[in-house]
Amino acid sequence: MEDLQEVLEGIVEHVAPLCRDGAVASYIPSLGEISPEKFGICVAMADGEVYGAGDWQEPFSIQSISKVFSLALVMSYDYDSIWQRVSREPSGTPFNSMIQLEADQGIPRNPFINAGALVVTDRLLSLTGDAAGSIRGLLRLESGNPAVDIDAVVAASEADHGHRNASMAHLLASYGNLENPVDEVLAAYFNQCAIEMCCEDLARASLFLARHGVAAGGTPFLSPNQSKRINAVMLTCGTYDAAGEFAYHVGLPGKSGVGGGIVAIVPGRCAITVWGPSLGPNGNSVAGIAALDEFTTRTGWSIF
Amino acid sequence: MEDLQEVLEGIVEHVAPLCRDGAVASYIPSLGEISPEKFGICVAMADGEVYGAGDWQEPFSIQSISKVFSLALVMSYDYDSIWQRVSREPSGTPFNSMIQLEADQGIPRNPFINAGALVVTDRLLSLTGDAAGSIRGLLRLESGNPAVDIDAVVAASEADHGHRNASMAHLLASYGNLENPVDEVLAAYFNQCAIEMCCEDLARASLFLARHGVAAGGTPFLSPNQSKRINAVMLTCGTYDAAGEFAYHVGLPGKSGVGGGIVAIVPGRCAITVWGPSLGPNGNSVAGIAALDEFTTRTGWSIF
Amino acid sequence: MEDLQEVLEGIVEHVAPLCRDGAVASYIPSLGEISPEKFGICVAMADGEVYGAGDWQEPFSIQSISKVFSLALVMSYDYDSIWQRVSREPSGTPFNSMIQLEADQGIPRNPFINAGALVVTDRLLSLTGDAAGSIRGLLRLESGNPAVDIDAVVAASEADHGHRNASMAHLLASYGNLENPVDEVLAAYFNQCAIEMCCEDLARASLFLARHGVAAGGTPFLSPNQSKRINAVMLTCGTYDAAGEFAYHVGLPGKSGVGGGIVAIVPGRCAITVWGPSLGPNGNSVAGIAALDEFTTRTGWSIF
Amino acid sequence: MEDLQEVLEGIVEHVAPLCRDGAVASYIPSLGEISPEKFGICVAMADGEVYGAGDWQEPFSIQSISKVFSLALVMSYDYDSIWQRVSREPSGTPFNSMIQLEADQGIPRNPFINAGALVVTDRLLSLTGDAAGSIRGLLRLESGNPAVDIDAVVAASEADHGHRNASMAHLLASYGNLENPVDEVLAAYFNQCAIEMCCEDLARASLFLARHGVAAGGTPFLSPNQSKRINAVMLTCGTYDAAGEFAYHVGLPGKSGVGGGIVAIVPGRCAITVWGPSLGPNGNSVAGIAALDEFTTRTGWSIF
Repeated sequence: MEDLQEVLEGIVEHVAPLCRDGAVASYIPSLGEISPEKFGICVAMADGEVYGAGDWQEPFSIQSISKVFSLALVMSYDYDSIWQRVSREPSGTPFNSMIQLEADQGIPRNPFINAGALVVTDRLLSLTGDAAGSIRGLLRLESGNPAVDIDAVVAASEADHGHRNASMAHLLASYGNLENPVDEVLAAYFNQCAIEMCCEDLARASLFLARHGVAAGGTPFLSPNQSKRINAVMLTCGTYDAAGEFAYHVGLPGKSGVGGGIVAIVPGRCAITVWGPSLGPNGNSVAGIAALDEFTTRTGWSIF
Repeated sequence: MEDLQEVLEGIVEHVAPLCRDGAVASYIPSLGEISPEKFGICVAMADGEVYGAGDWQEPFSIQSISKVFSLALVMSYDYDSIWQRVSREPSGTPFNSMIQLEADQGIPRNPFINAGALVVTDRLLSLTGDAAGSIRGLLRLESGNPAVDIDAVVAASEADHGHRNASMAHLLASYGNLENPVDEVLAAYFNQCAIEMCCEDLARASLFLARHGVAAGGTPFLSPNQSKRINAVMLTCGTYDAAGEFAYHVGLPGKSGVGGGIVAIVPGRCAITVWGPSLGPNGNSVAGIAALDEFTTRTGWSIF
Repeated sequence: MEDLQEVLEGIVEHVAPLCRDGAVASYIPSLGEISPEKFGICVAMADGEVYGAGDWQEPFSIQSISKVFSLALVMSYDYDSIWQRVSREPSGTPFNSMIQLEADQGIPRNPFINAGALVVTDRLLSLTGDAAGSIRGLLRLESGNPAVDIDAVVAASEADHGHRNASMAHLLASYGNLENPVDEVLAAYFNQCAIEMCCEDLARASLFLARHGVAAGGTPFLSPNQSKRINAVMLTCGTYDAAGEFAYHVGLPGKSGVGGGIVAIVPGRCAITVWGPSLGPNGNSVAGIAALDEFTTRTGWSIF
Repeated sequence: MEDLQEVLEGIVEHVAPLCRDGAVASYIPSLGEISPEKFGICVAMADGEVYGAGDWQEPFSIQSISKVFSLALVMSYDYDSIWQRVSREPSGTPFNSMIQLEADQGIPRNPFINAGALVVTDRLLSLTGDAAGSIRGLLRLESGNPAVDIDAVVAASEADHGHRNASMAHLLASYGNLENPVDEVLAAYFNQCAIEMCCEDLARASLFLARHGVAAGGTPFLSPNQSKRINAVMLTCGTYDAAGEFAYHVGLPGKSGVGGGIVAIVPGRCAITVWGPSLGPNGNSVAGIAALDEFTTRTGWSIF
């Protein structure tokens, strides 16, 4: 294997021509203004070393990647009880579909589709009183960057364009699968999605999933079993209805967001983050997927 | 870790009380006659060592596990072209559902649901002239057991109760996604499902997936990339609509059959086979799933 | 044919044993308190004569029957433009399903399922500024009873248990198929459903559909063509997913509500109302359906 | 009203410009060869008078219109028992969809979608030993034309392109909802669809539905109740998933076929047939629908 820093720089060069494929998410104005030319990649090794290339230190909206951290927090407080309210199966339908939710009587297929994430946020709200704040706290602590914060403009914009999520939250409520008022759950959810981070901070903050649950400070945040299980759910459900493609091409647990970021985990070894704002038809970063594909090919670090 | 032989014997003891949970597949008479008390487990290490316990040398009907081998054969001949006719996404619906197939205009969601397996068998028929025979040939070669064979009674029984598969094959044909006559594809498919093997033979025969594609004779059967990708598809799609649960609890690529067998792969390390005829609601062996869960817990051999 | 009054009295006797079949709607408390023993029937002839039997002068919650009048009002103002925002096809799925709405990109299948009725109410709100008030106005005028009113307790109760309708309204809004704020549309909708009327008032108020659009005062409220078309939509879509059964057994255009009322029209001849609070699995009054079946059998007044 | 003959001639002129809208069914070659310029219309009055215009005496393939006659025959032999094997609800999905069939466990939504028609034909096969022959016999008798026959080329062509129907028949068989072998049911079905008739013969043959069940010879073929009920099912289910549109615009019970024919009934008054080979997106004749719309507008003969 080449030197890891060279690998990352090679990947930045490799994906540059792809950055304009797909389209930047435009359903909220502030996301639509990002240049599709941006691209960053970062690898945080389990031992603490960090490598980065491209725009790896420029903050972006983490969006659905926040769902990994809300799930981890709920599991840290509450071990297993969340699985009575949300399943762990791939959805087989587009990420914002309500069909599955209705067919399954209000039990979302997994915690990484919007419906499932709303249930997890609802639980976190009950447990902490401030779901988005507790996620931000975790991200600050694990990244070591106390400046990690919620972008209030993005959060407000999400709320203004949030009929789809409001519809889903009311549907969950109609099945009795929300503990808190719909408005409060939605506010918390829009806030957690609007957290801004750069690739570096996000890679550091995700490292506990590569270290069998051990937090930045060296103490267990999750048990090895819990960490293993979050990775399993990321692999089968982390990239909307392209989870099969992602496993086939990348071969790592991963979670994407419509801000163009993706986090991937090589268990026992490292956390990788990529960021490219332009999205393919499944809502995943085109350049980001290509970068991770190239990364596993060049390093041989696949779980398969 | 304990001695591997002891692990397997401990597992046999551990799952014995579960053997009557669920129900033996009864849609064809010859499957329904098997005692639910049977249970076998076998581990074939990448270096050739083999460990087994329980009824690990008693043959059973491999059923859908044959789909792994038909896919591997097609990929060995034809690299990547099969993916134009079948996707690689989890199905999100029961294993025999026709809904998805219709919604996706005749392109099955993955090669491990029946519709996808029919397409793979159709391709193998075109490539070899004898799909079931070529699968049997591969299994004999890789297991080292020239007695591996098709149970003609089971194959005839599948055909007699095959309206569902016939319906699916005609639907595929109506979309132009079969190259051969429906009757020939069905006959080949019923034959490959009726192959009988014991845990030991099946573990040996699956070992190429743990050895990055290297066959029993030491030569490459598949490229490392192909082997990796079959493992990825097994993880996301190998256990019908319980793939998420399987990844969560077992954390290994695996493929099950309604005969009660399951093959699982620890890439780079070993192939594991379990056999327990009584099935849970998703069509997977109850004792087999429990045994693999216990196995990964005791050995720590998970990919996550 | 027997004397019409005798027919109605015979029907009251005939359906009495059925009044406890099914179950009274209980999703809002005030509906659940009604005695299932209640039963009323009324026939208003095109020439003004009125016949009634049983509890035909006792008010009940008209619920979804209000959808006929909101549609008529919108068509009276706006002729045909509503059909760009709602289809006229039977739904083929339960009345509160969101699946169809999603598959059809926010265009409800017909104006008599909840999603379609929300769109009609939204349009009426734009046209009149007070959707429920304008429906009440129409019902007062046509029934000749200025005391017809909204039951505020029922309306508030609908709102308290309205997550399902809120979910649908937000989903419509996400597709851009609402002109007014979600909250205002829902408030209007809950109010119109909470209008209380007796069989007699409701039969009189529905008579314009039996008189080719001519209102109580003798002037055209709708054109003959519009009246004909509302009857057509009632026949194909008026009784949720039991429209086929209703056409088969009753053979008249009809619209039911979960309060247990049903309005049916014999074009050119009469309007019939029945009321029996206990509902069958499709949300239609058990005694009401049986009464209408008996009515068309005894009178021979079917459109087929 | 104008003279009926003039009405029909006016309609032929009116629809001429529409004859090239849509597309002639081309899934079997012999259907695709028909000129889209063809158009015929015929009205057979209950008293025996017949009016026609355009190509009203040119035979065409009746296709799905045959489903009305197979249903009538089964009901004539067997009164009501067929309804245990097929429902009477509009399908809400395209006419050849298998989704509904699967969701409803092998019970087709109605006798006029292909799945339901296969069940009816299966029953007729059990009752008569020759389903297509008995339908032909009925059509000869009622039309008074002993030359009405099956077009063997079309029937063979249907069989050659019949994977979709074969798929459906096997699916029905898998649910135990066929009494006869799949191949025999399919052969009978392909034959009945391939019957050729002109508008005049078809209007005469349909007249029993306008005469409350009374056959050409003056004796009852069906009871008034049965006749009424077939008309009800035609109205709600006769034009695939455009039944709502048809009721809205035409306002009569009707049944269409992909050969471009439509039969409509004015109960108590007449049977109307139209034929125009070019089909709209729902599989109904474009010119035929327009002609019936015009017919009910000019005559005022609507059931609403």
